[in-house]
Amino acid sequence: MPSAKSPLTSNPLAIIAPGGRIGILGGGQLGRMLATAAAELGLSCHIYCPDEEAPAADVAAAATRAAYDDAEALARFADSVDVVTYEFENVPAETARILGEHAPVRPGALALATAQDRSVEKNFLASHGIPTAPFADVDDEASLEAAVARIGTPAILKTRRFGYDGKGQAKIANPAEAHAAFGSIGHQSAILEGFVPFEREISVIVARGLDGKTAAYDPVENVHKHHILDRTFAPATLASALAGEARAIAAKIVDELDYVGVMGVEMFLLPEGASPRILVNEVAPRVHNSGHWTQDACAISQFEQHIRAVCGWPLGDPKRHSDAVMTNLIGDDANDWQSLAGEPGLAIHLYGKAEARPGRKMGHVTRLYPLGTLPPDAVR
Amino acid sequence: MPSAKSPLTSNPLAIIAPGGRIGILGGGQLGRMLATAAAELGLSCHIYCPDEEAPAADVAAAATRAAYDDAEALARFADSVDVVTYEFENVPAETARILGEHAPVRPGALALATAQDRSVEKNFLASHGIPTAPFADVDDEASLEAAVARIGTPAILKTRRFGYDGKGQAKIANPAEAHAAFGSIGHQSAILEGFVPFEREISVIVARGLDGKTAAYDPVENVHKHHILDRTFAPATLASALAGEARAIAAKIVDELDYVGVMGVEMFLLPEGASPRILVNEVAPRVHNSGHWTQDACAISQFEQHIRAVCGWPLGDPKRHSDAVMTNLIGDDANDWQSLAGEPGLAIHLYGKAEARPGRKMGHVTRLYPLGTLPPDAVR
Repeated sequence: MPSAKSPLTSNPLAIIAPGGRIGILGGGQLGRMLATAAAELGLSCHIYCPDEEAPAADVAAAATRAAYDDAEALARFADSVDVVTYEFENVPAETARILGEHAPVRPGALALATAQDRSVEKNFLASHGIPTAPFADVDDEASLEAAVARIGTPAILKTRRFGYDGKGQAKIANPAEAHAAFGSIGHQSAILEGFVPFEREISVIVARGLDGKTAAYDPVENVHKHHILDRTFAPATLASALAGEARAIAAKIVDELDYVGVMGVEMFLLPEGASPRILVNEVAPRVHNSGHWTQDACAISQFEQHIRAVCGWPLGDPKRHSDAVMTNLIGDDANDWQSLAGEPGLAIHLYGKAEARPGRKMGHVTRLYPLGTLPPDAVR
Repeated sequence: MPSAKSPLTSNPLAIIAPGGRIGILGGGQLGRMLATAAAELGLSCHIYCPDEEAPAADVAAAATRAAYDDAEALARFADSVDVVTYEFENVPAETARILGEHAPVRPGALALATAQDRSVEKNFLASHGIPTAPFADVDDEASLEAAVARIGTPAILKTRRFGYDGKGQAKIANPAEAHAAFGSIGHQSAILEGFVPFEREISVIVARGLDGKTAAYDPVENVHKHHILDRTFAPATLASALAGEARAIAAKIVDELDYVGVMGVEMFLLPEGASPRILVNEVAPRVHNSGHWTQDACAISQFEQHIRAVCGWPLGDPKRHSDAVMTNLIGDDANDWQSLAGEPGLAIHLYGKAEARPGRKMGHVTRLYPLGTLPPDAVR
């Protein structure tokens, strides 16, 4: 088992063998769960993040605390690892470029550029015939007015960049609200998205390997609370043709991006009779909160799957052995750890964060059920 | 979530809340898997071991490289953690005593003293009515001769202390071989154990919490190769009354030892008609190789169960969601990682050890099967 860094990175397509080291940008819970998954495969991790509190660093062989624009620290970091990946999609392009001169960065620049900008993302999807909500670019008052005229209301104005968990969004119920909505997001470049009367939100966690093979977990249903994911039901209650369509859409996206790694694809399911029934809402070029259930309900978790992909290993089998309901522990929810830990059939995951601020993701729990027995009353 | 060390250790029965730190003696694969399990619960670890190569240190927040008799380093280590546990049973009594002055040590001194000495262990079991193979103490040529006369041959001479994986053992086929056998184990204090014509080797992974509650996983069947565990079949094919008896024996042992943590209890299953059918072979006061399958076939692994126990958390549900066959990767076996990783339904675990020496445990794989479908041809 070679543990050498040098022979591997000389070829950007090389496989990272056991003993190799993975660099992870970001020190939060996703990096932490990636690091423990890597450890199970005999790999070690080096965490790079600017924050003093970095839950991922507690389970990593090395950690660098530096800014994402510190070119020297980035180069040293990338030189010390066999491959670089990340736990968040807003990695600056310049950061990725510097890292890429020293080690392969997976997923690559195209995935980052596409996922960081809602307009680029939507145009990418449309250009490949993947249905989305109707959208129009908004850069100023004139294009705002044109967009409202074309898309109609109700509609949602979303900043092109750096939006997440409902941040950087404003609803426009009627044309008269457009001006104020644009002000509320600071007149940033945005897209106006037509309101879609969806029935449910579903998502697919898909992976693509270095060899181009893809593997998609079963579609799941997501329920949000205050714009933050609250619960994921695995699997989503879907006719098998629709489930197959959702998986195929996700696979098409990673194929078209020549993607390497795990991606979360969020979708809207429209009511029966609509055509198409499935629209893509957005993609996350990383492991995704709606895939946490895979840790407990599958032999191969999304975290291990991502590590396998970015290291050039064969993808794992995404089969479920159990049904599952994942519930996020937000803020004070985590204070119930003791009673949750005592609940039979429940797996508890805590992220090692010191302070339970409101809205902060502190952990999650997964309730397991035998295959095919997800209780209907658990849904919604 | 208090992360404080001081308020917790002032009371040796205190519960270690998320944010707390666990000290682990030993830096091998068991410590490594304990550390990643602790991380999932929001706890961090400090590894203490003398070896430069310590796979566990790569997934721990802190590591101390020092000898097990370095009183000063031990005290500093124990002062920095909320509880101390260990991955190997041969922790010197003096080491445990020093640590115990600074932090609770779990499992406790009684478990260590019992498991470290085959004579103490066998007498402990016998005194609680738990069947074992017949045995007699051997300290010199005279007691050897008396033991052979009482136990008969064939029999096995085993050093009282520090034996594992078949080391420190010598078979005595007939009385004439006794003298040479005693020489081959260096005339160390030993026990002579009567040969037991067992049908199969089984084991039970049992846990006992700080609250005295116990939880036992289903008994499994173990197959050895060259005196090292080769495969574990979960569950063992056993009538349910026998499986219940095996679990009850394991629970009685941890109860009688006032034990806290996970214990591996190795047993011999005698052929139908024998009474009793189950003898206890030996106990390991730690997580155990024959429990590795729990990582993939149960919601709560033996590693998480041990962390829960030593931290005073409620024990997890030991229920299986799948049947499983665990196979150790010894030495060069691990070179097949790439084809193993590509096998559907297989979970691969590698320990991050640099050198694949013959006989060295490098990893393991678990093949999963739906409940009740363990293929009969997989057994033995």
